[in-house]
Amino acid sequence: MSFRILLLNGPNLNMLGKREPKHYGKQTLQDIENDIQKAAAQYNIALTCFQTNSEEKLINKIHDSLGEVDFILINPAAFTHTSVALRDALLSVEIPFVEIHLSNIHRREPFRHHSYLSDVAVGVICGLGAAGYQYALQFAVAYLQQQQAN
Amino acid sequence: MSFRILLLNGPNLNMLGKREPKHYGKQTLQDIENDIQKAAAQYNIALTCFQTNSEEKLINKIHDSLGEVDFILINPAAFTHTSVALRDALLSVEIPFVEIHLSNIHRREPFRHHSYLSDVAVGVICGLGAAGYQYALQFAVAYLQQQQAN
Amino acid sequence: MSFRILLLNGPNLNMLGKREPKHYGKQTLQDIENDIQKAAAQYNIALTCFQTNSEEKLINKIHDSLGEVDFILINPAAFTHTSVALRDALLSVEIPFVEIHLSNIHRREPFRHHSYLSDVAVGVICGLGAAGYQYALQFAVAYLQQQQAN
Amino acid sequence: MSFRILLLNGPNLNMLGKREPKHYGKQTLQDIENDIQKAAAQYNIALTCFQTNSEEKLINKIHDSLGEVDFILINPAAFTHTSVALRDALLSVEIPFVEIHLSNIHRREPFRHHSYLSDVAVGVICGLGAAGYQYALQFAVAYLQQQQAN
Amino acid sequence: MSFRILLLNGPNLNMLGKREPKHYGKQTLQDIENDIQKAAAQYNIALTCFQTNSEEKLINKIHDSLGEVDFILINPAAFTHTSVALRDALLSVEIPFVEIHLSNIHRREPFRHHSYLSDVAVGVICGLGAAGYQYALQFAVAYLQQQQAN
Amino acid sequence: MSFRILLLNGPNLNMLGKREPKHYGKQTLQDIENDIQKAAAQYNIALTCFQTNSEEKLINKIHDSLGEVDFILINPAAFTHTSVALRDALLSVEIPFVEIHLSNIHRREPFRHHSYLSDVAVGVICGLGAAGYQYALQFAVAYLQQQQAN
Amino acid sequence: MSFRILLLNGPNLNMLGKREPKHYGKQTLQDIENDIQKAAAQYNIALTCFQTNSEEKLINKIHDSLGEVDFILINPAAFTHTSVALRDALLSVEIPFVEIHLSNIHRREPFRHHSYLSDVAVGVICGLGAAGYQYALQFAVAYLQQQQAN
Amino acid sequence: MSFRILLLNGPNLNMLGKREPKHYGKQTLQDIENDIQKAAAQYNIALTCFQTNSEEKLINKIHDSLGEVDFILINPAAFTHTSVALRDALLSVEIPFVEIHLSNIHRREPFRHHSYLSDVAVGVICGLGAAGYQYALQFAVAYLQQQQAN
Amino acid sequence: MSFRILLLNGPNLNMLGKREPKHYGKQTLQDIENDIQKAAAQYNIALTCFQTNSEEKLINKIHDSLGEVDFILINPAAFTHTSVALRDALLSVEIPFVEIHLSNIHRREPFRHHSYLSDVAVGVICGLGAAGYQYALQFAVAYLQQQQAN
Amino acid sequence: MSFRILLLNGPNLNMLGKREPKHYGKQTLQDIENDIQKAAAQYNIALTCFQTNSEEKLINKIHDSLGEVDFILINPAAFTHTSVALRDALLSVEIPFVEIHLSNIHRREPFRHHSYLSDVAVGVICGLGAAGYQYALQFAVAYLQQQQAN
Amino acid sequence: MSFRILLLNGPNLNMLGKREPKHYGKQTLQDIENDIQKAAAQYNIALTCFQTNSEEKLINKIHDSLGEVDFILINPAAFTHTSVALRDALLSVEIPFVEIHLSNIHRREPFRHHSYLSDVAVGVICGLGAAGYQYALQFAVAYLQQQQAN
Amino acid sequence: MSFRILLLNGPNLNMLGKREPKHYGKQTLQDIENDIQKAAAQYNIALTCFQTNSEEKLINKIHDSLGEVDFILINPAAFTHTSVALRDALLSVEIPFVEIHLSNIHRREPFRHHSYLSDVAVGVICGLGAAGYQYALQFAVAYLQQQQAN
Repeated sequence: MSFRILLLNGPNLNMLGKREPKHYGKQTLQDIENDIQKAAAQYNIALTCFQTNSEEKLINKIHDSLGEVDFILINPAAFTHTSVALRDALLSVEIPFVEIHLSNIHRREPFRHHSYLSDVAVGVICGLGAAGYQYALQFAVAYLQQQQAN
Repeated sequence: MSFRILLLNGPNLNMLGKREPKHYGKQTLQDIENDIQKAAAQYNIALTCFQTNSEEKLINKIHDSLGEVDFILINPAAFTHTSVALRDALLSVEIPFVEIHLSNIHRREPFRHHSYLSDVAVGVICGLGAAGYQYALQFAVAYLQQQQAN
Repeated sequence: MSFRILLLNGPNLNMLGKREPKHYGKQTLQDIENDIQKAAAQYNIALTCFQTNSEEKLINKIHDSLGEVDFILINPAAFTHTSVALRDALLSVEIPFVEIHLSNIHRREPFRHHSYLSDVAVGVICGLGAAGYQYALQFAVAYLQQQQAN
Repeated sequence: MSFRILLLNGPNLNMLGKREPKHYGKQTLQDIENDIQKAAAQYNIALTCFQTNSEEKLINKIHDSLGEVDFILINPAAFTHTSVALRDALLSVEIPFVEIHLSNIHRREPFRHHSYLSDVAVGVICGLGAAGYQYALQFAVAYLQQQQAN
Repeated sequence: MSFRILLLNGPNLNMLGKREPKHYGKQTLQDIENDIQKAAAQYNIALTCFQTNSEEKLINKIHDSLGEVDFILINPAAFTHTSVALRDALLSVEIPFVEIHLSNIHRREPFRHHSYLSDVAVGVICGLGAAGYQYALQFAVAYLQQQQAN
Repeated sequence: MSFRILLLNGPNLNMLGKREPKHYGKQTLQDIENDIQKAAAQYNIALTCFQTNSEEKLINKIHDSLGEVDFILINPAAFTHTSVALRDALLSVEIPFVEIHLSNIHRREPFRHHSYLSDVAVGVICGLGAAGYQYALQFAVAYLQQQQAN
Repeated sequence: MSFRILLLNGPNLNMLGKREPKHYGKQTLQDIENDIQKAAAQYNIALTCFQTNSEEKLINKIHDSLGEVDFILINPAAFTHTSVALRDALLSVEIPFVEIHLSNIHRREPFRHHSYLSDVAVGVICGLGAAGYQYALQFAVAYLQQQQAN
Repeated sequence: MSFRILLLNGPNLNMLGKREPKHYGKQTLQDIENDIQKAAAQYNIALTCFQTNSEEKLINKIHDSLGEVDFILINPAAFTHTSVALRDALLSVEIPFVEIHLSNIHRREPFRHHSYLSDVAVGVICGLGAAGYQYALQFAVAYLQQQQAN
Repeated sequence: MSFRILLLNGPNLNMLGKREPKHYGKQTLQDIENDIQKAAAQYNIALTCFQTNSEEKLINKIHDSLGEVDFILINPAAFTHTSVALRDALLSVEIPFVEIHLSNIHRREPFRHHSYLSDVAVGVICGLGAAGYQYALQFAVAYLQQQQAN
Repeated sequence: MSFRILLLNGPNLNMLGKREPKHYGKQTLQDIENDIQKAAAQYNIALTCFQTNSEEKLINKIHDSLGEVDFILINPAAFTHTSVALRDALLSVEIPFVEIHLSNIHRREPFRHHSYLSDVAVGVICGLGAAGYQYALQFAVAYLQQQQAN
Repeated sequence: MSFRILLLNGPNLNMLGKREPKHYGKQTLQDIENDIQKAAAQYNIALTCFQTNSEEKLINKIHDSLGEVDFILINPAAFTHTSVALRDALLSVEIPFVEIHLSNIHRREPFRHHSYLSDVAVGVICGLGAAGYQYALQFAVAYLQQQQAN
Repeated sequence: MSFRILLLNGPNLNMLGKREPKHYGKQTLQDIENDIQKAAAQYNIALTCFQTNSEEKLINKIHDSLGEVDFILINPAAFTHTSVALRDALLSVEIPFVEIHLSNIHRREPFRHHSYLSDVAVGVICGLGAAGYQYALQFAVAYLQQQQAN
């Protein structure tokens, strides 16, 4: 059976490529999802992509992943800094995840320097643009293969 | 007329009993709601139970309680620490409420030590597990009886 | 073509006039919206009013305004102090906006003294009650006329 | 053998019912102790009550409880916020305890928001008046029964 | 009898229109005072304008207003952030006032985010340029009319 | 009936005049008590003096003053900075009191700049040496006479 | 030669007795100065009284006191919390002084809890109303007599 | 004449060896006192040992040491972090002392990282278990010998 | 045309040489001004010297310098730490300036470590005594010559 | 010409694989460097690896890279949190770099949560173990190719 | 086989006995090392002494101790407060160590009150001068003997 | 005998003139050293120049200056903000020094606003570019001449 990976994108990421290219690059979210779906196909990964501006829908998606998903890739966007509920949702299902940020959050406003997810994530990638998703996918595959091997 | 009490449970509490028993015990939310419904029946209380992962739905439920509910029991879960809107909803309807936490939030991460609700609640119970709901119900009944007596 | 202005009201403002007149006055939100619609009609403005208790719906409304709205008037209520996602939504569409508060937030709890929106707003009006909406509308019209003139 | 429970009340609680009813209700401490003794009798509990204004005497009482008491109910009053020695005494005997406050300490001065006991207590009840003692007793009984059952 | 309103402008506002147009616009203070005098004439208001770089003279002017002025409009400029004496002067005469800032102080240095006046003002307008004075005048008239009506 | 005044001196003040004259002067506590007893005799005041190094004994003395004492003069010494229980004792009996410090606590270590008593005292005298007790006594007499007159 | 004492009163104290009796009592500053002049006459003190709302004039008055004044009594009012220049003026002339506050500044806003003068004053009296000036005068006389004796 | 040394042990140290061996080792306080008495005998030191859970009794013991004791060894336990009165007692008698902690307080809760005694002690030993008492005694002897030599 | 330079000295600097030589040296301000006038004469600089204890007069002097002065040398003394208005005055005229302190402010009270001027100054000299003025003058000449050359 | 990339490893990373596998995995630094050299060979990259425990040698290496290196991959280890000099070295050569941490620094001590490099890095990867180096290399290649293409 | 102990002395300790006797005593480092070598000889300990002003050399020395040294005595001097790399070096070799300071760091500047080593040390000795090294050596021997015994 | 002065330049200053002219100007360090050597020659000063990126080498250089150097001019660059060891080195030799910064550190990142050297320096010059070195040299000469004269 192939690994099952879920890619979550949080609020305002549906606007990617339309505004603020300084922080997030010119690609649309659709472009990024297409690219990562291609990579997932190469690894024979069952990848599901989901974006929402709703904290509730993110939480529900994570709950529904219990027993259905092996690894989560998440760009929590603004919820990074404010949502304890999202943290709790990830803790409640105990699915390993990597946190991704397109822009380098350390260059931005001080309130973006703290994340409610980082200390419960496996790792964090930030500032590498859309490529960050690719590396996170590669890592997830390697992580799951190693886990399977043990 | 019997007293009308609303029991609200916030985000991720639907996952109770499935994961993280260290913090929240082994019971499911359904178990807890069943137990407290039994107690309510004994007190002749009209008890409504509602759980959601959505801040909006919690707020709407509270608004709808105006004139329909005499006391609220609420386990706000992660919203405890982040939702000013929930505080404002409770203030807007001026229904007395008790705040409940299954686990002892003082033993957990520092960001769980502050609550946006406690200083506008009648009181707080934490760390007593599902029994906390029972005590809150008992208190609500006594509170309303005393109020009725005055 | 007339200017297109969007008036957004955040969580709990649907309860206006029902409770807590000390902070928010006796008018209902409907009263305020009617008054400002009258003023908009005088200025020949296409004004849309929207209230919600949902952060997601506010964000979606702002996203949908891209290319459809020239100026936003927003009373973010409790989201003022907690929602980075709302800030990001306003940044993502780059529509100029004025932040309005009915009550004087500087007289209230310390956590209401900080706003995630003020430093990206054009300006802020607080404590002037429903009249604040009128001044914000006047300002928006003047702002757009000046912009058009340049 | 019946369970042995110790009820400790800290400084100034001997003044209950004489002054400051806004914070602590109208009952005297004697009233409260009588009520909880009645409840203890119903549960067949050996309950000892002790109040003192002396930190030393509280500590000594706790030390003397080693091997003599199964559960402690404690309203540490002002020592909540200042006594590391009391915390250490409770840690040194490793008797489970519940912390009780008659008033809602979150509504009072900021220095009353921190407790040196809460993170080593099983749980905390505050703001429920004298009823808080009753719930704490009920909880202690249930806790000890469950412990005995395991 | 017509209402008596005092417009106070604090330090460095005499330099308006000469330098730093980024923060304060291109109008001179004379322009602004002329415009608001015109508006006052329309409302039949007795408006007095006063600018000074001296904290003492501002305080004296406020003291002299006792019994002579019904409402104060004040742009305290740099004194906003440093003058407790100005706050005390306004408190000592108990004349209602609105605080005005031409620029959006939330976009500027952190030390400009705190005001010694805001929590004792009726309300605050900032970032709306010279128009802020007009709205403050409108508000003052409405406020005084409503007060007269009661 | 003459007024009844209680003079309380806290920990280490029994060492006065033996050590550390830099902070506390050369007089012994006995000297100070003799001097103030003489003054009390002139005012026809029933003055009781009490010094202790025990927080408990101070609290008990204050409790025992309920209905027996009209005004308290207190030099809480080190308890100024650490004892919430002392504050609560004074609050519980609602007897007006003046806080006295022989030395100027603002010239000493930062932890001596905060007092748990000052904001519930009528007033504070510090740095005036033993004369501070005399002024506090004078004030108490005047305060009680004025209260009697009303 | 008799002692020369200067009584300085800072900003807004000229408004005493006209407004805010809750904080400052009903007496006017003229009443207070008259009373303290009478006391000074009894002690054969050359007392000069000076009130101003100007920081500059206070500083100049202090400078002019060099060699002309033996002791200063000062109620710095709002300058207490903001004027380093006033502190420096008092330091520059090295005349001993007592700081006086009519109201208990510890009961008021947090920014009134810090004084730029206290740690360089001989002592501080606060919350004792106009009587505080009398005690300060008494202390000054005793201080100067003792100094003369040495 | 031999040197006179006082060994003070603060609250809860009477429980040593009964509980919490992780922090404090397996020895009882009696064991420790016996060992150090043996060492004192070798050095021909008159060593007095005293343990109490009472802040008052510690203070009194220190006061009584004036002129009777040449050096103090003190393990203030929980009072380390909360007792200004203990600090003042040690300052008032001006007897040199070494502060001892059995466990490494830097590995424990943050509130145990600050000591009210360390900056007025000669030195501090922590984390070396009961051996710390031996080194403190050795140091005291050397210190007193050196002092005697000068 | 020769360069026009303004030397400003703030509050209490008129007392130089009379008191507190530890911080400010033995020279009077007149001495310093004479010395720097001599140096200015050598550089063929039109130097104006101005000292005041008034914030207002400093601000007015700076405003009057617009178009009349090429460089400002300023020792703001106590206003360094408290005057946003002075900062704004310097910003409003956009004349380059160097900030000078006679004493090393980093060795003094913590509140003297922050300056409201430093981040808008060209540079800062502190602790070099009266020589600091000479270096600032030299720098100003070089700065203006370089500017003229470009 | 192929791209020139420098891999820098900071203090204690030479100990990798010998101790503390919990934080850093079991591989030695030699293993990691071999793996990344292989990858570099595939991309036709001239990769230089350098590890040192010396801040100076890291700085010198960075200086020597000016004009010789196109991209830097750096795991600054403990210097992340303490070395402004390292930050300045990277700023001084203006070579783009990615910051890598083997372990998830957000799960470790609070002082490891701040980095002096992150806000001047292109991006950051942490917690992904040795794979993090591979992703950083991939990113560097893509970054340089894109730069070359523009 | 005898125990192998390493004594490390950090930056500036080579200057001991030449300057600043107030903080560090009159002995040179050579004196201290000679004395402790004598003691080591008595215990039959292989003691190596090493002093450096270089963080790198300290780290390298610690790395080289892996498998060669049983216990480390370290006076990290200024690196105590700034070097995370030194902490990591000690963690990486997992050799138990005691931290020593000649002077009482709690009496010195606030930035000397925090140590990056204390919470990972076995214990800390400070303020006991050169004797502190002797006690640390004694402790190390006892510690190693006890470890050997288990 | 002529005065002996040492000019120390810290990390990254060897890169001057190559990069970041915005902060440090266009001159190379060699240019600056040449210029100041010329000035030293005019004053008949024996000036030694030394730059290093190594904290250890700076410390050693300072130690070697004991008895060999009369005054130190130091631009500590990044070590300003992080090196307690450098501070201790300067304290250990007790050679007076002036701290120099080419750029205005108050305009840069907040962590550059604090210096570990300033409060033990004679004085500080910042933001005056290379001229700052010249003024520091002039000051050193004057300082030493004055010292010689006394």
